[in-house]
Amino acid sequence: MSKKHPHLIRDALNPLHGAKVMGRLVRRAVRSPGAAPGTLVAPPPKVERVRLRFFDYEEGRWEENEKATVEECFVLKDLPTVSWINVDGLHDVQLIEKMGTYFGLHPLVLEDITTPGQRAKFEEYGRYLYVVLPMLAWDAERDVVVEEQLSLVLGSNYVLTFQERYGDVFTGVRERIRTDGSRLRQRGPDYLAYALMDAVVDHYYHVLETVGDATERLEERVLLDPAEETMRELHTLKREIMVVRRSIWPLREMLGTVQRSENELLTERTQLFMRDVYDNAVQVIDAVESLRDVISGLVDLYLSTVSFRTNEVMKVLTIMASIFIPLTFMAGIYGMNFEYMPELAFEWGYFGLLGAMFVVGMGMVLYFRRKGWL
Amino acid sequence: MSKKHPHLIRDALNPLHGAKVMGRLVRRAVRSPGAAPGTLVAPPPKVERVRLRFFDYEEGRWEENEKATVEECFVLKDLPTVSWINVDGLHDVQLIEKMGTYFGLHPLVLEDITTPGQRAKFEEYGRYLYVVLPMLAWDAERDVVVEEQLSLVLGSNYVLTFQERYGDVFTGVRERIRTDGSRLRQRGPDYLAYALMDAVVDHYYHVLETVGDATERLEERVLLDPAEETMRELHTLKREIMVVRRSIWPLREMLGTVQRSENELLTERTQLFMRDVYDNAVQVIDAVESLRDVISGLVDLYLSTVSFRTNEVMKVLTIMASIFIPLTFMAGIYGMNFEYMPELAFEWGYFGLLGAMFVVGMGMVLYFRRKGWL
Amino acid sequence: MSKKHPHLIRDALNPLHGAKVMGRLVRRAVRSPGAAPGTLVAPPPKVERVRLRFFDYEEGRWEENEKATVEECFVLKDLPTVSWINVDGLHDVQLIEKMGTYFGLHPLVLEDITTPGQRAKFEEYGRYLYVVLPMLAWDAERDVVVEEQLSLVLGSNYVLTFQERYGDVFTGVRERIRTDGSRLRQRGPDYLAYALMDAVVDHYYHVLETVGDATERLEERVLLDPAEETMRELHTLKREIMVVRRSIWPLREMLGTVQRSENELLTERTQLFMRDVYDNAVQVIDAVESLRDVISGLVDLYLSTVSFRTNEVMKVLTIMASIFIPLTFMAGIYGMNFEYMPELAFEWGYFGLLGAMFVVGMGMVLYFRRKGWL
Amino acid sequence: MSKKHPHLIRDALNPLHGAKVMGRLVRRAVRSPGAAPGTLVAPPPKVERVRLRFFDYEEGRWEENEKATVEECFVLKDLPTVSWINVDGLHDVQLIEKMGTYFGLHPLVLEDITTPGQRAKFEEYGRYLYVVLPMLAWDAERDVVVEEQLSLVLGSNYVLTFQERYGDVFTGVRERIRTDGSRLRQRGPDYLAYALMDAVVDHYYHVLETVGDATERLEERVLLDPAEETMRELHTLKREIMVVRRSIWPLREMLGTVQRSENELLTERTQLFMRDVYDNAVQVIDAVESLRDVISGLVDLYLSTVSFRTNEVMKVLTIMASIFIPLTFMAGIYGMNFEYMPELAFEWGYFGLLGAMFVVGMGMVLYFRRKGWL
Amino acid sequence: MSKKHPHLIRDALNPLHGAKVMGRLVRRAVRSPGAAPGTLVAPPPKVERVRLRFFDYEEGRWEENEKATVEECFVLKDLPTVSWINVDGLHDVQLIEKMGTYFGLHPLVLEDITTPGQRAKFEEYGRYLYVVLPMLAWDAERDVVVEEQLSLVLGSNYVLTFQERYGDVFTGVRERIRTDGSRLRQRGPDYLAYALMDAVVDHYYHVLETVGDATERLEERVLLDPAEETMRELHTLKREIMVVRRSIWPLREMLGTVQRSENELLTERTQLFMRDVYDNAVQVIDAVESLRDVISGLVDLYLSTVSFRTNEVMKVLTIMASIFIPLTFMAGIYGMNFEYMPELAFEWGYFGLLGAMFVVGMGMVLYFRRKGWL
Repeated sequence: MSKKHPHLIRDALNPLHGAKVMGRLVRRAVRSPGAAPGTLVAPPPKVERVRLRFFDYEEGRWEENEKATVEECFVLKDLPTVSWINVDGLHDVQLIEKMGTYFGLHPLVLEDITTPGQRAKFEEYGRYLYVVLPMLAWDAERDVVVEEQLSLVLGSNYVLTFQERYGDVFTGVRERIRTDGSRLRQRGPDYLAYALMDAVVDHYYHVLETVGDATERLEERVLLDPAEETMRELHTLKREIMVVRRSIWPLREMLGTVQRSENELLTERTQLFMRDVYDNAVQVIDAVESLRDVISGLVDLYLSTVSFRTNEVMKVLTIMASIFIPLTFMAGIYGMNFEYMPELAFEWGYFGLLGAMFVVGMGMVLYFRRKGWL
Repeated sequence: MSKKHPHLIRDALNPLHGAKVMGRLVRRAVRSPGAAPGTLVAPPPKVERVRLRFFDYEEGRWEENEKATVEECFVLKDLPTVSWINVDGLHDVQLIEKMGTYFGLHPLVLEDITTPGQRAKFEEYGRYLYVVLPMLAWDAERDVVVEEQLSLVLGSNYVLTFQERYGDVFTGVRERIRTDGSRLRQRGPDYLAYALMDAVVDHYYHVLETVGDATERLEERVLLDPAEETMRELHTLKREIMVVRRSIWPLREMLGTVQRSENELLTERTQLFMRDVYDNAVQVIDAVESLRDVISGLVDLYLSTVSFRTNEVMKVLTIMASIFIPLTFMAGIYGMNFEYMPELAFEWGYFGLLGAMFVVGMGMVLYFRRKGWL
Repeated sequence: MSKKHPHLIRDALNPLHGAKVMGRLVRRAVRSPGAAPGTLVAPPPKVERVRLRFFDYEEGRWEENEKATVEECFVLKDLPTVSWINVDGLHDVQLIEKMGTYFGLHPLVLEDITTPGQRAKFEEYGRYLYVVLPMLAWDAERDVVVEEQLSLVLGSNYVLTFQERYGDVFTGVRERIRTDGSRLRQRGPDYLAYALMDAVVDHYYHVLETVGDATERLEERVLLDPAEETMRELHTLKREIMVVRRSIWPLREMLGTVQRSENELLTERTQLFMRDVYDNAVQVIDAVESLRDVISGLVDLYLSTVSFRTNEVMKVLTIMASIFIPLTFMAGIYGMNFEYMPELAFEWGYFGLLGAMFVVGMGMVLYFRRKGWL
Repeated sequence: MSKKHPHLIRDALNPLHGAKVMGRLVRRAVRSPGAAPGTLVAPPPKVERVRLRFFDYEEGRWEENEKATVEECFVLKDLPTVSWINVDGLHDVQLIEKMGTYFGLHPLVLEDITTPGQRAKFEEYGRYLYVVLPMLAWDAERDVVVEEQLSLVLGSNYVLTFQERYGDVFTGVRERIRTDGSRLRQRGPDYLAYALMDAVVDHYYHVLETVGDATERLEERVLLDPAEETMRELHTLKREIMVVRRSIWPLREMLGTVQRSENELLTERTQLFMRDVYDNAVQVIDAVESLRDVISGLVDLYLSTVSFRTNEVMKVLTIMASIFIPLTFMAGIYGMNFEYMPELAFEWGYFGLLGAMFVVGMGMVLYFRRKGWL
Repeated sequence: MSKKHPHLIRDALNPLHGAKVMGRLVRRAVRSPGAAPGTLVAPPPKVERVRLRFFDYEEGRWEENEKATVEECFVLKDLPTVSWINVDGLHDVQLIEKMGTYFGLHPLVLEDITTPGQRAKFEEYGRYLYVVLPMLAWDAERDVVVEEQLSLVLGSNYVLTFQERYGDVFTGVRERIRTDGSRLRQRGPDYLAYALMDAVVDHYYHVLETVGDATERLEERVLLDPAEETMRELHTLKREIMVVRRSIWPLREMLGTVQRSENELLTERTQLFMRDVYDNAVQVIDAVESLRDVISGLVDLYLSTVSFRTNEVMKVLTIMASIFIPLTFMAGIYGMNFEYMPELAFEWGYFGLLGAMFVVGMGMVLYFRRKGWL
C-alpha cells in the first residue's frame, strides 16, 4: 500500500488538490451565470489542438482520415454510407458551432456538448438523437477517478462523437470497422452508436477492478493492523466510489429510456443489443453498490477493532496498576520513620511482610484470572 | 477557517441566533391561524419601500422603467408586446391585491405570494400559470444560507415576478432584453419565464460552491487535527446543507411537472429549454447529495480518529505505568526500615538490585514491543 | 431547560407514565377483540358530558346553538341551508348510533368514530364522505404531544364533526361563519369541510414550533455542556417527534386522495383550496423530517463530544503520570537503605539527582509537546 | 424484569434454542428438496390428533359439530347454507388430500396448506379463493413470538380453514355464529372469511402490546442503570420484532390485493369491510415500525450512556492521580538518604514542604474546577 | 467455531484469496474489452471435459444418454417428444456455437451463456425463451458462497441447459423423469423448465441454512465472549451474505417478469407453478434480509459489549488507584528524613496514622459504593 497509495493522503492534505476534488463534487455543468442559453462558452482546453477524425464505411469498403478538416467531414453527410466523425477537444467553439449548423443541431445540444460534467442523458430531437455519456478512467498517478464527457449524435447516416481528450476506449471499435465482414460494417449507424456506448460501459469494469483492488488492500490492512492513515484512506476511497456512483446511476435510467425508445433511428435489431448494454450497466451499478457496502463494513470493522484494542490496553494497565499499587503502599508503610513502630523490630517482620505481599499479589492475579482478563 | 467561520460557533451558541435558525426549520408558510384563506396578511417587511419595475419589449423595441407606478404597469396588460413586471418587497398587501384584481389572480395565489417560505410549486390556473421558486443565497457574514421566495405568474403576454428583497440574480436576463437580436427578444413570455427560472437554478451553483469550499476546509481539518470545534462546525454545515436540500428537492418534482405540462401558454419550443432547467436542477440535487455524503463520511472519520487517538494515548500511559510501577515497588521494598533485612548488608546488594530493575524494565519493554505497542 | 423539561425525565422513569407513552406507540384503534364489526364500544370518556353544538347558515343568515339536543340537530338535515353539527365527547354511543341512523351512516363509520387513535383516512360512501383526521396538541404540562381524533362527515347540505374533548382549533372558523359576507358563508358544506381541515393542519405548526424550540434548547446544551440527562432528553424528544410523524405521514396520502377525488360532493372551486391544504401538509412533513434530521445529528454530536472529552481527560492523566512516575522511581532509588550505595556520600549527589530529574521531566514535557498534547 | 425475562438470555446462550430461533429466520416453507411440486409431505405434527370441526348456518338456523368426520363435512358442500369447516393439525396428509379432491383444490394449494411458514398471500383460482395468513402469538414462557399458519379457502357456499394447532382466536366469531340475528348469520361465506381474517389481524395487537410492554421495561432500565444484559435483551427483543415484522409486512400487500379484487366471490358489501381489515393491518405495521424505531433509539441511548459514564470514571481517576502523584514525588525527594541534603536540617523544612504540597494540591484542584471537571 | 471457521480469517488475510473474493465483488460478466459483441470467448474452464447429457421423454416412454455427442442431440430437435439437453462446462465455444447455430440462438444469447457471473434475467426471443439463473452453493472447505451460472433455453419441444461444473441440484428432477406417471412426464417442456428453476431456487435454502447456522454460532460468541476475531468473522459473514443477496435480488424481478409473460411457450397451467417459484424466491429474499438485519444487530451488540467492558475495566482501575494513591502519599510523608518532624516522636503516631489511613480508605470505598461502582 505504501507504494501504491502515498498520494491518497498527501493529496487529501493538499489544499490545492482538495479544491480540485471538491470541484468534482459540485460540478458546474452550466454556462457562465447570466449568459443566454445556447451561448457557447469554450470550456478550459484539455488538449492542445482540436482534432477531427472520420470513418466512412459500407459493407464492402471503408475509408479513414485521422486529421480531417471540417469541410472534408461535411461532404460525408450527403453520402449514403455510414460516417463516424469524432472530435477530440471542445474548446474550439467556432468549429463546433459550424458543425452544429451544418448538421442542424439544436443550440442546447451544442451548449451541452461544450459544457463537460453533465449527467448521462438521452434526448430525441426530430432528425437525430443526442446522448451524453460520462467516460471514467483511473488516474493511476494521482489515484483518483477522472471523468470525461462523451457526446454522441446519431443521425440517419452518421454518428458524431465529441470528447474532451485524445485517448479513448474505441480502439476495438475502430479495428472492427477496418475488418471486412464484421457485423459492424454490415449494419447502420445505430449499430455503431451501440458499439461505442458498449465500449464505454465496458470500460467501467477496468475502473471498478482498480477500485476493487484498492479496497481489497485496505481490507487486509484493517484486518491486520489498522493505523490512523488506514481510516483516512478508507475515507478517500469512499469518496472516489461516490464519484463513480454519481456518474453511473443516471446511466441506468438513461439506457432504460434508450431501450424503450421507439424512435425509427434505432432499428429493432439494434435494440436487442442495447438491452445488453443496459444489462451491463445494471451489473456495474451492482458492483459499485457492493464496493460501497464493503467499504462501509470496513469502517465498522476499523472502529470496532480500535475499540477492542483500547479495551485490551486498558486491561494491561489495570492489571499492572492494581497489583503493584497496593504492594507499593505496603512497602511505603514500613519505610516510615516513626520512632515507635513495633513491627520493625520483629525478627521475622521483613519476611512476614514479603509473604503478605506475595499473598496480596497472587490474590489480585487470581481475581483477574476469574474475571477472564488474564 | 478561523478567519472564515468564527460565526458558525458563536452563532450556534447564541440563543437568539439559534432561535432564528430553528425558525428556518419549521417554516410557517401559512396565514395567521384561524384567518380565512385568501386573507392577505402582510409579511414582516424585508425592504423599506416596495419597488415596481417593468420591461416591455418586442423584437425590435424595448422599454424599461425602474420606478414604475401601478397604473403604469396596468397599461401594459393590453399591449401585444411582452411585459415583465417585477415587484420587490411583499409587505404592501394593498398593492398586491390591486394587481391581483387587475390581472385576475386567484385569492390563494395572492396569499401564496405574500407568505414566503413555501415549497417550490407549479399550478395551472385558467388563463395563467403560477410558479413558486425558492432563491438561495449564501450570507457570507453570518455563514448561513438565506432563502428568498420568488413568485412568478405567466400570462398570455406578461410575466409578473414578486421578490422579498431588492437584489436578485436577473442582471443577465435584463441585459439580454436590452440586447437587440437576442433570442429572448424574439420569443414570447414563456421564454422569459424560462430565462428567469434558469437564472435562479443556475445561481444554486454559487451557493453550493461556497458550501463545497467550507466542506473542503473542514475535511482538511478533520484529517490534520480534529478539535472539539471541528465537530460543531460539521454539525452546523450539515444543517445548512439540510436547509438547501429541503429547498431543492421539491424543485425536481415541480420542474418535472412544468416539463410534462401541455398548457398552451408554454410553447413546444420553450419546453425544450425547460427540460434543460430540469436537468440542471437534477444535477444540483446530485451535488447536494454528494456533499451530504461527504459530510457524514467526515463525521465517521472524526469519530474514528478520536477513537484511534484515545487508543494511542492509552498506550503511552500503559507503557509508562507498567514499566515504572513495578520498579518503584522494588525500590520501596529496600526503603523499608526493618531492623533485620539481610540484603541491605550485602556489599553488592545495591548494584544487584539495580541490575534486577534493569532486567525487569527491559522485560516490560520487550513485552510491549512484541505486542506491537512500541 | 431545568425549568421547562423536568417532566421529561421524571416521567420517563415513572413506570406508570411509561406505560401510557407505550400505549401511544401501540395504538389499539380497534373494537374489543372478538366483538362483531360495527359493534359500538364506548371509548374511555375524556369529557364529563357529551356536548352538541350546531351552526346553520346561508349567505344572509346564521344561527348557532351551543347546547343543542339531538332532536334539534335532526331538523337541520332537511333544511336547504348549510349545517355544521359538532359532537364533543365520544363515550355516549347511544347518541352516536342515533345520529348514525338518522344520517344513514355505515356501521363501520360509526365504529371508526368511536374508536380513537386511527390513521388519517378518507372514504367515499354513497351519499356522504368520511374523513378521519388526527389533531395534535402540545401538552405543556407533561411535555408530550397529545393526539385527538377528529371525524368529519360531509353530506350534501351538512357537515358532522366528532371530537374527543371540548377545546378545539375551530374558533377562527366559527368567527368566519358569524361574519356577514365572508367567503365561508357564500359557499357550500364542502368549503366548510375544507375550512375545518385547513384549521387542523394549520395547528400542526404550533406543535412543531414548540418541538422546534425544545430541539433548539437541547442543541444549545449539547454544544455547550452535554450531560447524561441531555441524551435522555434527546431520546424523549425523538420519541415525541416519532409520534407526530406517525400521525402526519398518512395525512399526505389521504389529502392526496381527497384532492384527486371526483366526488360530486366536492365542487371544483373547493378542490382548488384542498390543494392548498395538501401543500401545507407536505410542508409540515418537511418540517418534521428536518427536526428528525437535526435530532439525529445532535445524537452524533453528543457522542463525538463525549468521545473527544474522554480523549482530553486521558491526555491529562497520561501527561501527569508519565512525568511523575519515573521521577518518583528515581527518588525511590535513593530512599533505599543499602549499606553500600556510593552515590549517597557524594557531596554533589543530591543536587546532581535533582538536575537529572529536571532533565527527565523536561524531556517528557518536550515529548508531549512534540506529540501536540500540550 | 429479572422475573419476566430470564429466559431471553439463557435461551440465547443455549445452542439448541438458538438453532430453533435461527430456524425461524430461514423458514423452509418448501417441500423436501427434489420432490415433485404438489407432493404432500407431512409437516412435523404439532398436535396429537387432527381434529375436524364444522359450522353450518343460514339466517334462521345453525348447526355445529366439534368432532366431525370427513364424510360429514362433504355433505355440507351441496347444501345451500354457509358452511365453515376447520381442520386443526396438518400432518394427516391423506385427510387433506381427500378434502382437496372433494373440493377441487389445486395441488399447489394443498402443498401450501401443508407447508407452514409461508408469506401471507391471496390467490384466485377459478371457483375458489385461497388465502394464507400468519397468526402470531406471544409464548409467555419462552418470551418469543410464535407463528402459526392459517390457510383459508373461500368457495361459493363454504369456508375451509386449516390451522397447525388447536387453540385459536376465533372464539368471538363462533359466538357470533351462534347468536341469532347477528350480521354474520345474515351474510354469505365471504363475510365469514372477512370475520376470520379480521380476528387474526385484531389479535396482532395483543402480541404487539406484549412486545410494547417489554420494550417499555427495557427503556426504563436503559435510562436508570444500563447493564451488559440490558443490551443483550435489547438485541433479543429487536430480533423478535424482526420476526413479527417479516410476518406482517406481506400482509399489507396481500390485503391490498384482496381489497382491489373484483372476484365475484367477494360481494361489494363485504369489500367495504375488507377495507377495514386493510386499515387495521396498516396500523399494525405502523406500530411495529414505531417499536423498531424506539428500540434502535434505545441502542443509541445505551451506547451514549456507557460512553458518558466511561468519561465520568476517567475524570475521577485523572483527578485523583493528578493530585497525589506529584505530591508523592515531593515526599519521595525528602525520603532520600543523601548525606548532604541541606533542606533536611532546616527547622521549618518539614512544615514548609507540607505548605508547598498544600499549594500544589490546591492548584490542581483549582485547575480541574476551571476545566469543569469538579 | 474454532473447528469450523479457521478458514475465514486465514483466507481473509491471504492476499491471493482476498483477490479472489474481490474478484467476486466486481464480476466481469462481459467479453474481453473491445471485442465485438457476440464474439464467443472461452471462459476459464472449470471442468476437464465438456459433457453432454440428454433426456428425451413423452408420457409413456423415456430415454437417457449420459455421454451424448452433439449429433445425437441434434436429432432430438425434430422429434415431437420433450428433450432436455444439458451441457456441463462452458469452455468449448466451438461446441456451443454449433448448438447455437442448430437451434437458431441469437449471438448475444451465446455470448451470455459463455460469460458466467451475470445477473438473473429472462429474455423472450422469437421462437425460444432465454433464462439466466445463478446457482449458489456453500463451499464448506473454504467457508465461502460459490456461484455458478445456469443458462436455460426453452423452445417449443426442448429445453437446453448450460452449467459451469458437473455436480448440480437436478437429481430430483431426473428421478421424476424416470418415474412413469409423474406429472413431469405428462406435461410439456415449459413444465420441465419450471421444475429446473424450482430446484435451483429450492437449493438456496440449503445455502441460507448454512449461513444461518454460522450466524447463530457467531451470535453465541458475541453474547458470551467477544474477541477481536469475532468481529472479523462477522465482517466476513456479512460479505458472504452480500454475495448471496446480490445474486438473489435480481431473481425477484426476473421471476416476476416470467410470471407476467404471456408468451405462448408458457402454458397457463405452468404459469400457476411459476407463481409458486416466485413466492419461494420472495421468501428466500426475506430470509436474506433477516440474516442481514441480525448480523448488523450483532455488530451493534459487539461494539456496545466492548464499550461496556472498557467501562468496567476503567472502574476497577479507578477504584484501586483512588484508594491506594492517597494512602501511599501519606506513607511517603512520614518516610521523609527531615530532622524536625514532631509527629515521628509521638508514641501513638504510627497507629494514629494507620487509623487515619483506614478512615481515608473506607471513605473512598463508601464514595464508590454511593456512586454504584462497587
